[in-house]
Amino acid sequence: MLNDKLDAIAAAGFDGIEIFDNDLVASPLSPREVAAHCAELGLSIDLFQPVRDIEGVAPERFPAVLHRVQRKLEVMTELGATVFLACSNALPDAIDDTELSAEQLHAVGDLAASFGVTVAFEALAWGRHIDRVGQAWAVVEQADHPAITLAVDTFHMLARGDDGAALAGIPGDRIGFLQVADAPVLDMNVLEWSRHFRCFPGQGTLDVAGVVAAVLGSGYTGPVSLEIFSDVVREADPFVTARDAMRSLVFLEDQLGERLSGPVREKISAAPPVPKRTDVAFVELAAPAGSAYAELLTGLGFHIAGRHRSKPVVRWSNGGADVVLNEQPAPGPAATALGLVAPPVSDVAERAAALLWPAVDRTRGAGEADLPGITSPSGLHVFVSSEPGDADDWRTDFVPSTDAAQELGWLGLDHVDMTVPADELNQELSFFRTLFGLEPEAPEEYIQPQGRLRIRALRARKGNLRVALNVSETGPDVPQRHGISQLAFATTDVVAEVRRARSRGVEFLAPPENYYVDLDARFILEPGLLDTLREHGLLYDRVGDGELFHAYTLPVPGGFQVELLERRGGYDGYGASNTHVRLAAPR
Amino acid sequence: MLNDKLDAIAAAGFDGIEIFDNDLVASPLSPREVAAHCAELGLSIDLFQPVRDIEGVAPERFPAVLHRVQRKLEVMTELGATVFLACSNALPDAIDDTELSAEQLHAVGDLAASFGVTVAFEALAWGRHIDRVGQAWAVVEQADHPAITLAVDTFHMLARGDDGAALAGIPGDRIGFLQVADAPVLDMNVLEWSRHFRCFPGQGTLDVAGVVAAVLGSGYTGPVSLEIFSDVVREADPFVTARDAMRSLVFLEDQLGERLSGPVREKISAAPPVPKRTDVAFVELAAPAGSAYAELLTGLGFHIAGRHRSKPVVRWSNGGADVVLNEQPAPGPAATALGLVAPPVSDVAERAAALLWPAVDRTRGAGEADLPGITSPSGLHVFVSSEPGDADDWRTDFVPSTDAAQELGWLGLDHVDMTVPADELNQELSFFRTLFGLEPEAPEEYIQPQGRLRIRALRARKGNLRVALNVSETGPDVPQRHGISQLAFATTDVVAEVRRARSRGVEFLAPPENYYVDLDARFILEPGLLDTLREHGLLYDRVGDGELFHAYTLPVPGGFQVELLERRGGYDGYGASNTHVRLAAPR
Repeated sequence: MLNDKLDAIAAAGFDGIEIFDNDLVASPLSPREVAAHCAELGLSIDLFQPVRDIEGVAPERFPAVLHRVQRKLEVMTELGATVFLACSNALPDAIDDTELSAEQLHAVGDLAASFGVTVAFEALAWGRHIDRVGQAWAVVEQADHPAITLAVDTFHMLARGDDGAALAGIPGDRIGFLQVADAPVLDMNVLEWSRHFRCFPGQGTLDVAGVVAAVLGSGYTGPVSLEIFSDVVREADPFVTARDAMRSLVFLEDQLGERLSGPVREKISAAPPVPKRTDVAFVELAAPAGSAYAELLTGLGFHIAGRHRSKPVVRWSNGGADVVLNEQPAPGPAATALGLVAPPVSDVAERAAALLWPAVDRTRGAGEADLPGITSPSGLHVFVSSEPGDADDWRTDFVPSTDAAQELGWLGLDHVDMTVPADELNQELSFFRTLFGLEPEAPEEYIQPQGRLRIRALRARKGNLRVALNVSETGPDVPQRHGISQLAFATTDVVAEVRRARSRGVEFLAPPENYYVDLDARFILEPGLLDTLREHGLLYDRVGDGELFHAYTLPVPGGFQVELLERRGGYDGYGASNTHVRLAAPR
Repeated sequence: MLNDKLDAIAAAGFDGIEIFDNDLVASPLSPREVAAHCAELGLSIDLFQPVRDIEGVAPERFPAVLHRVQRKLEVMTELGATVFLACSNALPDAIDDTELSAEQLHAVGDLAASFGVTVAFEALAWGRHIDRVGQAWAVVEQADHPAITLAVDTFHMLARGDDGAALAGIPGDRIGFLQVADAPVLDMNVLEWSRHFRCFPGQGTLDVAGVVAAVLGSGYTGPVSLEIFSDVVREADPFVTARDAMRSLVFLEDQLGERLSGPVREKISAAPPVPKRTDVAFVELAAPAGSAYAELLTGLGFHIAGRHRSKPVVRWSNGGADVVLNEQPAPGPAATALGLVAPPVSDVAERAAALLWPAVDRTRGAGEADLPGITSPSGLHVFVSSEPGDADDWRTDFVPSTDAAQELGWLGLDHVDMTVPADELNQELSFFRTLFGLEPEAPEEYIQPQGRLRIRALRARKGNLRVALNVSETGPDVPQRHGISQLAFATTDVVAEVRRARSRGVEFLAPPENYYVDLDARFILEPGLLDTLREHGLLYDRVGDGELFHAYTLPVPGGFQVELLERRGGYDGYGASNTHVRLAAPR
């Protein structure tokens, strides 16, 4: 295992590693063998963390601490590691006495110095008495030993409510190590949170960059080290994890702007920034012979707007909404790709490469647009187009059809729902965040008939792209379909659109009568409005002055649903309060 | 879905139900149709909880509350339900004014009374201002309306640190409803805890019985209703859930002793109590031709102690340890069953039936012992035997062999580890707790190479049975083997036993040298002791004055490992600190 991790870390381009003692203790490799393997791979061993609870210890038990430290310093000599991480004492019987802690750290410092080792002392967020970085720094100052320095860990600081300001006045040369980790904000025991949900920068929502900027601002020039504990990472292939780790540093670099320097900066060629705005261009459906998508689109009011210059691919439009039917042979009908307008396209392609996202495809026919194709971790194909009028506008690949009058009812694609496996959620979030700079919204959860549905929505800071990632946590016996599960189109008159689509044979979910009784109880609707909703099988939500009217088709071939919606009065959500009705509706 | 749940609840023998409004709103059945179906099934609708946040509301918005309540009371008329559950306001803008809340509840009471309905008011553990049962009772008293009563929920009370004493002085006829739920103790946000981990009594560790006893002691004679929210229950078959629910009431009944009365008492024929003590009798291995178990047992120092009177089943002994080899044809070698001494056996069989545990097998040959066979939810066969000397002692089924001298080195089976699927853990815990009265120990967690290992150990209150349930949370790509994963035997001289077994060809896990360096760092061992541990590949742990010496064989056919251990100085654990070394050891 340790060997696999080392290989993966080296392959992702890292300079060095931390060794967690459990990995070493359980390894058949001797410390010298580990050191030799790291040397072959070009990895330095930047940190070792072998002993817990070394200060705030009852004086009669301190000799045993020094014994433990000495034995581990001998191991460090064999490893060739020179920084020793010591966390604040987390034992229930730790003694609350700064002076004692400082004295004991001083003694540990003497011992470490005799081995040429520096100790970096860290305030664990769940330390018994020392759990804030300011307290750890006070003890380090009082220990007053050149081999005793402060370790900064973004997670432990942010988990306790500290930010970069807590480091004000600490000289960079007294910071012995910097560990970075992010986490989703969860209101739970900090130890459990830390053990199971710590994640790479960009996968969580803590202000990691703020702390890193403060550390770099202090003059610190040591390594930036990622220290993550999470169930997802433990279960993942170490090569996948190492790539995630490296791309999280690119994300961190973006956030730091020009403030980052030192080894990380040198290692990573600065990637182009995220696109200034990201808008939806089209959805692509794989439509092999017999797919029935042409009938569906016709029923929904789309018309053929163009045909691809070199491939059996047809552009269908309805006002601002575009769907591309790829009629080439395919395993079956499915929603497979999303086209985005995110200029300049070559920057996006270059950024994807720097982020180690795989499979950037830039093949194209003569005279066709450069539409880099990038595949998300869960398998969604994303094509990146330039703006209308530009040579690399996707529309230029299509010869316009003039055989249908253009209808103007639809505004465009409002959002896309994708179902991803639970263990791929962090990666998929990271894909949209790191490549396009999408912002995650608060997680939502629903009860569905066979388990829990978790939704993480993301939206472009500028531009209209919205993607909602769904994780369906069902028992092992329920088969799961992954991929695009919903295409939501915005209209200006959803009642008229649903009526027209129904008259053309499109089938919609029918909410039960109990739903309308409940709507009336909740919202005191005008009788006329309630009748309209009931007649057309529409769902309704209201938040403040904003209203949402929406309807879902039955699942279509390929397993997704089409949602038609109309937003009024600035309604900005997704109809969350109706989710249980949609999920329980008979299929 | 609602229909399925109703059928399952009726099949498990319940008298009545609560309806959660989301289930009704999403149902195609009208309230009258639901009522008719319940009537057919003999289920009363004891509670409906349709409206949240009805008190502590800004006065100008209170008419809308009354509108919601009125509409839902109309639905209740159609359902034929007469108790309306109202939870304390949990909205951020709830107003902290007891008088206002009482006034508003009084108005709701007038409305409810006009429909013949009683309101039961509950303090949600995450209510904005009212989150303790005492506060809810104060508001109910102040509301001073016959249709406004107190709802007691064991979970919400215990989650906030209240126990039965908090109900002192509340008259039983002012308690309008009793909901019971248990939970494992987890230090996390109470709302998340409540939504995902609430479980049936006996699956968690809260003192549910204490609160129920207090409610019954007050003179309350209404329903005892199970209200559970958990991810596991959501994903499970409703018929499984309903049986779990019913058996949890038997468990609750045990704990209440004679204090329980009313409908629950009438419904459930009082089951015999849990056995006074539960000891291990034997482990049974399926040993079809070619299984190699005879060689393994010989290598470990077992000898043939007897042969079954009517079947090709052989008893092997080593001191106090017994292993039974079942040589009948089987799909493959495996550890399949556990024999327990838990007299009187007929009580255990009857109790298992009352608890709805399936598959009690009491077939036996002429003159053979009555050994009821009960299958645990995860598939372990458990045979229940009487004590030595009794007619139903399992040993009487074996004709003693006299061809081998009895060795006396082993004390017996110390504990058994079983790996169960994550979604079956609660049920398996419930099996051992409800049937044999085993006590759960604190949950433990380890990191293994491919994910997280969770361990829940249980032990008999009296008797030597210890079972550790393991849940291995790995990614979807790692195949899992379920069933017995470890048989740990206690010895008085594990060094001698391991030496002898090795000399007879049994292969043991070899901890790496790094492990011994670490042991020395942690414990300052005498050099001689360290050499002995290293020489024999033993693992070591120390807690206070207690010491554990132990060793694991490599996995044997059937996929389990045999552990040999020696406890000294009252060591009472399982060597938890060595788990990561065992898990990382090459297989």
